Amino acid sequence: MVDNFESLIARTPQQFRDRGIDARVCHVVEAIDLRTRRVSVQDTRTGKTSTEPFDYLLVATGAEPVIPAISGIDAQNIFAIKTLTGASALKQTLDSPDVRKVVVVGGGYIGLEMADNLITRGLDVTLIERGPHVMSTMDGDMGQTISDTLRTMGVHLQENEQVERFESQNGKVTAVVTDHHRYVADVVVLGLGVKPRTTLARMAGLPVGVRDALIVDDRMATSMEGIWAAGDCTASRHLVSNRLVHIALATVANKQGRVAGINIGGGVARFPGVVGTAITKVGTLEIARTGLDRHEIESLGLDFAEVSITTETRLAYYPGVGTITVKLLGEKGTGRLLGGQIVGTEGSGKRIDVIATALFSRMSVTDLIDLDLAYAPPFSDAWDPVQIAARQLSRRLTLPTP
Amino acid sequence: MVDNFESLIARTPQQFRDRGIDARVCHVVEAIDLRTRRVSVQDTRTGKTSTEPFDYLLVATGAEPVIPAISGIDAQNIFAIKTLTGASALKQTLDSPDVRKVVVVGGGYIGLEMADNLITRGLDVTLIERGPHVMSTMDGDMGQTISDTLRTMGVHLQENEQVERFESQNGKVTAVVTDHHRYVADVVVLGLGVKPRTTLARMAGLPVGVRDALIVDDRMATSMEGIWAAGDCTASRHLVSNRLVHIALATVANKQGRVAGINIGGGVARFPGVVGTAITKVGTLEIARTGLDRHEIESLGLDFAEVSITTETRLAYYPGVGTITVKLLGEKGTGRLLGGQIVGTEGSGKRIDVIATALFSRMSVTDLIDLDLAYAPPFSDAWDPVQIAARQLSRRLTLPTP
Repeated sequence: MVDNFESLIARTPQQFRDRGIDARVCHVVEAIDLRTRRVSVQDTRTGKTSTEPFDYLLVATGAEPVIPAISGIDAQNIFAIKTLTGASALKQTLDSPDVRKVVVVGGGYIGLEMADNLITRGLDVTLIERGPHVMSTMDGDMGQTISDTLRTMGVHLQENEQVERFESQNGKVTAVVTDHHRYVADVVVLGLGVKPRTTLARMAGLPVGVRDALIVDDRMATSMEGIWAAGDCTASRHLVSNRLVHIALATVANKQGRVAGINIGGGVARFPGVVGTAITKVGTLEIARTGLDRHEIESLGLDFAEVSITTETRLAYYPGVGTITVKLLGEKGTGRLLGGQIVGTEGSGKRIDVIATALFSRMSVTDLIDLDLAYAPPFSDAWDPVQIAARQLSRRLTLPTP
Repeated sequence: MVDNFESLIARTPQQFRDRGIDARVCHVVEAIDLRTRRVSVQDTRTGKTSTEPFDYLLVATGAEPVIPAISGIDAQNIFAIKTLTGASALKQTLDSPDVRKVVVVGGGYIGLEMADNLITRGLDVTLIERGPHVMSTMDGDMGQTISDTLRTMGVHLQENEQVERFESQNGKVTAVVTDHHRYVADVVVLGLGVKPRTTLARMAGLPVGVRDALIVDDRMATSMEGIWAAGDCTASRHLVSNRLVHIALATVANKQGRVAGINIGGGVARFPGVVGTAITKVGTLEIARTGLDRHEIESLGLDFAEVSITTETRLAYYPGVGTITVKLLGEKGTGRLLGGQIVGTEGSGKRIDVIATALFSRMSVTDLIDLDLAYAPPFSDAWDPVQIAARQLSRRLTLPTP
């Protein structure tokens, strides 16, 4: 749906140089020496290696796709997108008239967005998901709506199946074999999530935590003097669970980069943490979540209640009205809001931001009812869908009277 | 745009009776006697008057359109919509082939929505606004965009003009005369705002405040034992200015009604107040505001800064991208968020809810920057437009370092 890949480049090396930043592409840092405060760098175009001293070091090595070590994974036409170059190669392969059947492995954000785009291109798409429903960061009742949408779009969705191996011929993938079936495939796209790219930092002795993500404080400083880290390679504090989590999203990475930059430059800024907000779109279905899902709440041992309501995106009599389902979860006794999930037609998804803002400021479920949200017939009912859900949930939390 | 008026009726008297509520339509309460705890009621169909005793009384008399006492106001075909019956009469008049030219007086929510609908019906529409720009609850820089949109839609917009009198022939309006011009009119629609309908309550001795709205506490109780009030006839606490305000909106009225009902029924509920959120749509332009505007902030004597940014509604490379302008206002020194305004294409307006939620929980402008809002290319940039504005505003507030 995007015309050309160049339009996706945020800034060129020249644009950095114009601002006085010596941005070196095609340079790989091979080692960090914290004692001598130097990095070893190889220029991949010349093969030449050099060392560079530093006063401050920012580790922003990002994340990389999870690639499972299963038989046949190295065959051609198995793609796990991590760079624009990789995406371009996938696009070229898909343009070949020989490609008809594509198998997507994994039903998370990347898997779903891939399946959506592949179907739009007129390909035969099978999506294989290990768990009982796609979108494991949403609860099962919400995941069901997403699965139904995928099937309506024509995606062959196979849930509760585990990929065991890939078959190939002349080096090219020909089939995906699961614990249940065998699927012929001209191309395979992996959407199995990402992991922090921290081997370099770990080898240098920087401390890591959850999923090997780098541990930083709220100024984005590591425990080593003068060494900072930001973006998809770091762990973040989850403000609802108070646990460290690894969330590789552009929003979080951008905020962390800003905070690290201000602090390294001598200013003071803090990154308080995340509440786990994410959004995507599959066909015309908007999908969003924030806070803790049922599984996360159970793992914390909290006593909770949940409710989900389905209503209209606009006032019921207004033309163009669609459907929105809002789910809220809250803690019994305290009445604390714990999380929210939304699936619905156009105009549904970004409503998650109200719940995310409420979680950020540690609101109760009854606080949500009181919010002064915008209403006019083209936008919602006089009771916003989020507030309808909050009213129902508040009754299940047996709150102390305010 | 709505098929029939019946679909606008929320509940019929029979639906109320089915739930055990004796709903009497066509009954007018003529007096409230607080001492004997009785109301005098007239059945307008029979003319019969009776008295009804009460233990608790809820005053929910709503608001009514402001109708200026100027010459010629009583002519036929001058409409100030206050009931469905009135709207139906206007619709019938507009259906007449003789009606070509309609003059709308007042450029607030009602005036703009009327102008939008009249233009869609193919009528010749002139909108007369007394102030320098339409939408006086938005600042002038935002109002300009709205004025431009109205003109592009074909509305003859006349700002800085005051209506002085109406001309008529055979009892029907023929022209609107302002301090500058004379406009031929087959129909005139008044959109001059509403005022609380509290004559009955004031005559009974219930205390009123701002714009003669009834004064209630946060349980919706008046100062008279057992007498409650809710909806457009009451004043609300503005949580940003801490002043009493009269805001006649369905969202506020619904919340107040719920709180009054719970309390009268023996429960405990509170209505904390409003932050002044409102939204509307003119053509394809979405218009929303919350908190305090520049004029309100100046009247409070606060030292403030403001910023407005214009960016894309989706990620810039994403198809279907539109334009959104976000304005934020904050207090210098404290860094407190004071208000926000949005104009933009589809998907812009409801983003005001994030600002409304932030105001409700008394966030600072820098808190807005930290919010974990949802991002994916179809919905926004990695920095949400509200956060881009917050970043720029925070620099102008000379905040103490956090």
